[in-house]
Amino acid sequence: MKKYSEMELPELHKLYEELSLEYRDYQYRALNLNMSRGKPSPEQLDLSMGMMDVLNSHADLTCEDGLDCRNYGVLDGIPEAKELLGDIMEVNPDNIIIYGNSSLNVMFDFISRSMTHGVMGSTPWCKLPKVKFLCPVPGYDRHFAITEYFGIEMINVPMLPTGPDMDMVEKLVAEDDSIKGIWCVPKYSNPTGNSYDDETVRRFARLQPAAADFRIYWDNAYTVHHLYDHHQDHLIEILAECKRAGNPDLVYKFASTSKISFPGSGIAACAASLNNLEDVRRQLKFQTIGHDKVNQLRHVRFFKDIHGVVEHMRLHADIMRPKFEAVEHIFQEELGGLDIGSWTCPNGGYFISFDSLPGCAKAIVAKAKKAGVVLTPAGATFPYGKDPEDRNIRIAPSYPSLDEIETAARLLALCVKLVSIEKLLIEAGEAVC
Amino acid sequence: MKKYSEMELPELHKLYEELSLEYRDYQYRALNLNMSRGKPSPEQLDLSMGMMDVLNSHADLTCEDGLDCRNYGVLDGIPEAKELLGDIMEVNPDNIIIYGNSSLNVMFDFISRSMTHGVMGSTPWCKLPKVKFLCPVPGYDRHFAITEYFGIEMINVPMLPTGPDMDMVEKLVAEDDSIKGIWCVPKYSNPTGNSYDDETVRRFARLQPAAADFRIYWDNAYTVHHLYDHHQDHLIEILAECKRAGNPDLVYKFASTSKISFPGSGIAACAASLNNLEDVRRQLKFQTIGHDKVNQLRHVRFFKDIHGVVEHMRLHADIMRPKFEAVEHIFQEELGGLDIGSWTCPNGGYFISFDSLPGCAKAIVAKAKKAGVVLTPAGATFPYGKDPEDRNIRIAPSYPSLDEIETAARLLALCVKLVSIEKLLIEAGEAVC
Repeated sequence: MKKYSEMELPELHKLYEELSLEYRDYQYRALNLNMSRGKPSPEQLDLSMGMMDVLNSHADLTCEDGLDCRNYGVLDGIPEAKELLGDIMEVNPDNIIIYGNSSLNVMFDFISRSMTHGVMGSTPWCKLPKVKFLCPVPGYDRHFAITEYFGIEMINVPMLPTGPDMDMVEKLVAEDDSIKGIWCVPKYSNPTGNSYDDETVRRFARLQPAAADFRIYWDNAYTVHHLYDHHQDHLIEILAECKRAGNPDLVYKFASTSKISFPGSGIAACAASLNNLEDVRRQLKFQTIGHDKVNQLRHVRFFKDIHGVVEHMRLHADIMRPKFEAVEHIFQEELGGLDIGSWTCPNGGYFISFDSLPGCAKAIVAKAKKAGVVLTPAGATFPYGKDPEDRNIRIAPSYPSLDEIETAARLLALCVKLVSIEKLLIEAGEAVC
Repeated sequence: MKKYSEMELPELHKLYEELSLEYRDYQYRALNLNMSRGKPSPEQLDLSMGMMDVLNSHADLTCEDGLDCRNYGVLDGIPEAKELLGDIMEVNPDNIIIYGNSSLNVMFDFISRSMTHGVMGSTPWCKLPKVKFLCPVPGYDRHFAITEYFGIEMINVPMLPTGPDMDMVEKLVAEDDSIKGIWCVPKYSNPTGNSYDDETVRRFARLQPAAADFRIYWDNAYTVHHLYDHHQDHLIEILAECKRAGNPDLVYKFASTSKISFPGSGIAACAASLNNLEDVRRQLKFQTIGHDKVNQLRHVRFFKDIHGVVEHMRLHADIMRPKFEAVEHIFQEELGGLDIGSWTCPNGGYFISFDSLPGCAKAIVAKAKKAGVVLTPAGATFPYGKDPEDRNIRIAPSYPSLDEIETAARLLALCVKLVSIEKLLIEAGEAVC
């Protein structure tokens, strides 16, 4: 394929006309596809329907330590749920608190508590003139929304193929004690799908932040969410690494079963050092009498143990993999060699990240929408919704059917071509008809 | 019976000796009973076991509006859950947000949000030099714990048989704009079991607080928790009354199914004006993607509608009523006419409130504990755990079996007698052997 940048103007004009006709055809089809959110498909949800049967009216709802899960009690989770989530999160069950249905909610609570009560005795953040967070970009919009809601200033840190730019992270946290945290999705990152390499995790564990109440918010949302049996990313376990590095309290680790069982009806957990958990429990005991233990029990009885989870995630992967591969294949076929965009080919997670030519992402998303394909709004993967280069588009292939994904990916590629030509023509001072 | 205060000293001494022997007998029995928390008994929990069957692996988990409850989405509850909770709470479903497993958690969140973001645009409370709450006493310890956790100064307001002392409430909120709220359990109140009378609710709805961000925290935890079919307390619906009074935004109303289905695995809700709910949603959308919709659906499919709930609560009442009546009967038998204590005989709820002679509650609770009966710590029903008169003891008859309740009530009455005589003897300058 010839690069667009090497085409003569008449060639570009001609191509634009042809592609415009193609685009019009898509418009006639009145598509209604959504690739905007990382939602499991109905087929994936069906995988967990057996969970509805494991507890019935004759079941004994007593957990391992003899407690009746139906009644009040147990602030931080039943033992067997701690064990299961401990195995998923690769930490000791003693380092775990089991929460309700959403890890997002837990992260919100952690920021909220830090605002009103500080971290392990530090000044409450609401009493400080300025609080800042580092935000590897592109990243997860809901993370950024939480810090924005609390008026925390966000600083972009570029995501490299190895993880966040650690030179920048190390320098910033060492210099500025108003920097209190960093949002991380370290494995199959949202949206790039990359995982942090060993060197990056080791440098995270050895950060020397100026602020004693600085914490790494390690949202390991996709820890068991592989697409392949034989190509799996490996991530160094951060709690153990922090301990080895003499920084045991540096990190909060989050996970949930939202994309393992049912989104919204799963169980979430936080893992941290015993010191951090003690600090958390000081709040938790005022906030709740306990989370949903029946649902904790339901999860354990269904999955049994980590092997059950691993097997279950293979079934998810069988549904997800063809969708990811379809997008990657179509992008390669349609866009390979044109030099108008690049995309990731992750081994797991829920997203493919696409980077267009600078200044094109918004126009591409708008054009796709006009033809019936909804994508995550351009800019959403950056704090304040502002992608300074207007390049990044998050693609979520999980929810639509394989057929729909193929259609959506072809249309998206077409929109990329059209908008890229528009850009090249405008830059050359040409009118776009 | 002769009043203890009218007995001569030798008579008191003799009685004390006899009662001490009785007490020793109890100690030999090595009892291990707990009347400290308002927990449903296992028999009550069994009533809801059918809920484990209503959803199975073949069930359609689509809710009324066509949404798949298994997936992400729906910030404020599925329509049928809003309808069910609306009927329980006697409000329009539009005025409801469905939450997770605990209304305590919701109330905590409301205070936390007010601290960091204020109320409908007001100054965040964390930026104010002083925030105060009114606390009708005796009241619910976990309410007081939340406000204490956030450093909110609590002001005691006496509970009268009609509800909080409204003269005092009206005066205080009108004078002091640092008073931002009042904790209320308006029906079958915790711990007195009294309900607010019509006059009290009408005066609440017509409060003229100096603070625009003052709210009534109306925790209607026991709204359908009657003990009798024919003696039921009636409470004026506060949302409608506030609207009538021209104060539509004055109140937040809370409820949950914790003591209807399963504590910790129920669903909670908040009802408020549309203005208030809009303010709440502005936070909620950052805090969560949505609560557990599968559990919402499970509740609706099990109870079907308000009639199902009412029938279900009759079955609860059949288990609870004999326990309440046993305590009341034994108190009457053992303590009637002695003038050393008074107690409530509620028509619903989870508690009986006992008032001893001044200065005796702590000693009574300690003495009961020594003989193996654990009660809510004396003072717990007051802010900061300090009952200024050391009189109030909260009795929770729900959890132990009827036999155990009878034993515990007799022992408690005995402890009341012993401690009362000790008090009378010490006041008379006598030594207590």
